[in-house]
Amino acid sequence: MPADPNAFIGYTAAAFTTAAFVPQAWKSWSTRDLSGVSLPMYALFTLGVGMWCAYGFVIGSLPVVLANGVTLVLASLVLGLKLASLRGRVNPAG
Amino acid sequence: MPADPNAFIGYTAAAFTTAAFVPQAWKSWSTRDLSGVSLPMYALFTLGVGMWCAYGFVIGSLPVVLANGVTLVLASLVLGLKLASLRGRVNPAG
Repeated sequence: MPADPNAFIGYTAAAFTTAAFVPQAWKSWSTRDLSGVSLPMYALFTLGVGMWCAYGFVIGSLPVVLANGVTLVLASLVLGLKLASLRGRVNPAG
Repeated sequence: MPADPNAFIGYTAAAFTTAAFVPQAWKSWSTRDLSGVSLPMYALFTLGVGMWCAYGFVIGSLPVVLANGVTLVLASLVLGLKLASLRGRVNPAG
């Protein structure tokens, strides 16, 4: 745990916003119900999180790379499932 | 536009991940279709984004406060609509 209380708030915030995508990815994967999920949201969000990763690399911040790397994998999964649902390749029954 | 190219990547990333919630909030608001949206995701995410705002305040970073403040409003709206849908107070017809 970082000794700096400000950094502790930041790390906790990062943990929450990254962990948040675990239940969404799990729900989307297990139910294949993507009907209320916005395609432009996940397109923009995946692009943005990829840029956060790139930003982490260029400033040499491993925490930024790791937190956004995990989110990138999860958001990409939701995006892929949404795209697949629109193409009729997945549905709740199959 | 910041002169530092690294900062430019960071600001662009922040703009994308914040803007991403506009189409989701709009879709959730206009369709009231929250079926594929994960409640624990929005609970964790709203909490985390609120902590990012607090972090912005304690480190004195207006960009962090503003970017996360906008996201907080949008994510809170989706969370509220999800909670309302679970309580049967909203539906696609009304």
